[in-house]
Amino acid sequence: MKQEDLIFFKNKLNDRCKTDIDTLENYGHDETENLVFLPSVVLIPESTEEVSEILRYCNTHLIPVTPCGARTGLSGGALPVKGGVLLSMERFSKIISIDENNLQVTTEPGVITEVLQNAVAEKGLFYPPDPASKGSCFIGGNISENSGGPKAVKYGVTADYVLNLEVVLPSGEVIWTGANVLKNATGYNLTQLIVGSEGTLGIVTKIVLRLLPKPTKDLLMLVPFFSAEKACAAVPEIFKAGVIPSAMEFMERDAIDWTLKFVDDLSISIQPEHQAHLLIEVDGWDESVLLNDCERIAEVVADFDCDEILFAETQAQKEGLWKLRRKVGEAVKSHSVYKEEDTVVPRYELPRLLKGVKEIGNTYGFKSVCYGHAGDGNLHVNIIKGDLDERTWKEELPVAIREIFELTVQLGGTISGEHGIGWVQKEYMDIAFGKTELQLMHSIKQLFDPNTILNPGKIFPDSTENH
Amino acid sequence: MKQEDLIFFKNKLNDRCKTDIDTLENYGHDETENLVFLPSVVLIPESTEEVSEILRYCNTHLIPVTPCGARTGLSGGALPVKGGVLLSMERFSKIISIDENNLQVTTEPGVITEVLQNAVAEKGLFYPPDPASKGSCFIGGNISENSGGPKAVKYGVTADYVLNLEVVLPSGEVIWTGANVLKNATGYNLTQLIVGSEGTLGIVTKIVLRLLPKPTKDLLMLVPFFSAEKACAAVPEIFKAGVIPSAMEFMERDAIDWTLKFVDDLSISIQPEHQAHLLIEVDGWDESVLLNDCERIAEVVADFDCDEILFAETQAQKEGLWKLRRKVGEAVKSHSVYKEEDTVVPRYELPRLLKGVKEIGNTYGFKSVCYGHAGDGNLHVNIIKGDLDERTWKEELPVAIREIFELTVQLGGTISGEHGIGWVQKEYMDIAFGKTELQLMHSIKQLFDPNTILNPGKIFPDSTENH
Repeated sequence: MKQEDLIFFKNKLNDRCKTDIDTLENYGHDETENLVFLPSVVLIPESTEEVSEILRYCNTHLIPVTPCGARTGLSGGALPVKGGVLLSMERFSKIISIDENNLQVTTEPGVITEVLQNAVAEKGLFYPPDPASKGSCFIGGNISENSGGPKAVKYGVTADYVLNLEVVLPSGEVIWTGANVLKNATGYNLTQLIVGSEGTLGIVTKIVLRLLPKPTKDLLMLVPFFSAEKACAAVPEIFKAGVIPSAMEFMERDAIDWTLKFVDDLSISIQPEHQAHLLIEVDGWDESVLLNDCERIAEVVADFDCDEILFAETQAQKEGLWKLRRKVGEAVKSHSVYKEEDTVVPRYELPRLLKGVKEIGNTYGFKSVCYGHAGDGNLHVNIIKGDLDERTWKEELPVAIREIFELTVQLGGTISGEHGIGWVQKEYMDIAFGKTELQLMHSIKQLFDPNTILNPGKIFPDSTENH
Repeated sequence: MKQEDLIFFKNKLNDRCKTDIDTLENYGHDETENLVFLPSVVLIPESTEEVSEILRYCNTHLIPVTPCGARTGLSGGALPVKGGVLLSMERFSKIISIDENNLQVTTEPGVITEVLQNAVAEKGLFYPPDPASKGSCFIGGNISENSGGPKAVKYGVTADYVLNLEVVLPSGEVIWTGANVLKNATGYNLTQLIVGSEGTLGIVTKIVLRLLPKPTKDLLMLVPFFSAEKACAAVPEIFKAGVIPSAMEFMERDAIDWTLKFVDDLSISIQPEHQAHLLIEVDGWDESVLLNDCERIAEVVADFDCDEILFAETQAQKEGLWKLRRKVGEAVKSHSVYKEEDTVVPRYELPRLLKGVKEIGNTYGFKSVCYGHAGDGNLHVNIIKGDLDERTWKEELPVAIREIFELTVQLGGTISGEHGIGWVQKEYMDIAFGKTELQLMHSIKQLFDPNTILNPGKIFPDSTENH
């Protein structure tokens, strides 16, 4: 970056323009593997106007801009892979208004998802999407990646709650994508074009979300299975029985084992013969209805060779079980170098996906730990490096991952359910989409961002980008 | 249209290429006012390949193509305003498969919505969106306009059920927009870009929808109010009390009166002092829960000056009340020449919208009959010609409508909730969106359809189209 560019930014933002090496290193990574890319400068704007000025300048001077939230992403969406400006939205940390009359909240993107959830919960309202990182991730990042989480199975993903967005385009122009309404048949859906676009089309500066009344009751059960495939096979049968759980999480044996070691304050004992667990929650307003639901679920899983069900009896036990589930990712990460794939298929295809992943692992000689949101057919496949040599890891793994994704697509699924494509999955996009679809998407990118300044190097395979 | 074009189509489609005047007139209108535009030819393809060949030919020869479904639309989306080809999707009438394991249905676009609903209901499954025209409209048309209906308040609109679409682009290329999964963070959301695009970006030839388990119980109540504004004011309070009804319909006095005359087999008596009614449904699996919900609703509405609530006690009574609601549009239409506006605001703003509409009516001297989906803040404003002279109707009404829409947008809403913009609302698009947003949308149109052959003259104000 040229000296004059730095001077421009420094003059605009003073100490919110940072170039010291500690800051650059700190902002050079997210939670994706061990990847680090240094930006030339970290800018921390605090108003839409500042974002607009920065983008206008960078667009004119062809400076790459990578936006970031809390940098908890798992696909490298926030990595400044082309250097330039790292634009941190951390100062956009205000919940602007909670509208109890219309069940809506207007917020800035740099609010931590759980902080937002708690703020609306205080008014009896409910913002359901709850990615595992909800205690640290930003709502703006959730919108960029279209995050899910356990509750998606009943309540849907981030996209399903976004009504309207204020977005700064690469030109510096500011738009609102929609209106603050539950139904909208007015022109093209710019809102949903921005959601999940991973910061490649514009910078979100204000967000209007719809809310629900907050259910007052929930019940949680942990079901152990003697076979992981049978655990998966039980999942669609629960829905067919007419129950829509508010969470339906799958954990393979190793996922729980490793996490139990990692979280030392949990007093849950797992039997060695249990190969997998389903963590199932139901929620609502009426305890007798929920008990009924639990009974129906228990009847269904009994046909799939499960062992005795653990019902969480206290709030502490519920929190313990959820902590166990939420910490799986971290536990796997601390165990070994790994690579996480965010596969998603129609839920009935889960057993076939799981079986296929293990077979591919056997062929290529890697071990995987699988867990995730079984109710959505969303399986996180954690491929463990363990003692694989560097050559195999670097050269053969991508071939194996390609096979996993091809299987996913064959089963009617796709290559990311909730983590996004970002930097690490982009070379697999040709598996999910044909040339025409990819070219359409890339043309949309060029339309919004003709100079390719915004989060360059993401989503599209290099071959498309250089097209 | 040139003779050689007609010969090409005739050779391709034989008797599914029609040019007789009766057919042209028949396909020259939808349900929008009394508008008729004659196409040069009506083509009735029956395969994706045929649609592709037709589009490729028309794209090369710059022939306008207006797709149509069942022509029940209310914004003129299916009117062939530029002549050319009227492409009827009526032969795409097959439900391809109902996937009970994954709660999905794959269908062609020319299936009547209610036929689809009944087919999945036979398997205990539920496709909720239920526009008033569900007995005649096509699911493909619902996707083009992002249709809603009474159940949207609890279950969402058409967009919320669309997982994946096969679409023929104007170039003749065929794409799939997504995958058959509940969560998708893989590239830009082409699916939601097509939904609600009113046939201007591509022709939908296959549709994958998600389904729900079908609730087994419902209760229906009709609540009379002495004031229409108070009826509207009661609406948000019901949600705030923690109840999400499966329908929450508002009908002004005249709407019911006119419909009662129109539907002669209903034995419902409406008191002269009742100014408006709310028709409220709750659904679920447990009757005691629903009775509880009804009690809470009754407690809430009691504070808004309502009269005695009618609970539907038999299935016949329920059907009668729903028939009453569904026939309102038709009844108004048979009463007088009218113009329908599909306003939508955050639901708490409904009383202000209603009051404003009446005030604008007083200023310009027109009467309006209002009804609609109060739970979504979606109010259908039917402006009645009555004995207004032609000049007032033609020249002053657009000014009044502009005021109504400006009010809608001031209240946080927009100019169409579920009918689309189509032909009749396009000159109001500048109220809902600024120049930059409109230009972005128009650039997306150009990207998909560089020769502007597909449903030309729709959505965009003439000034944008000619930009």
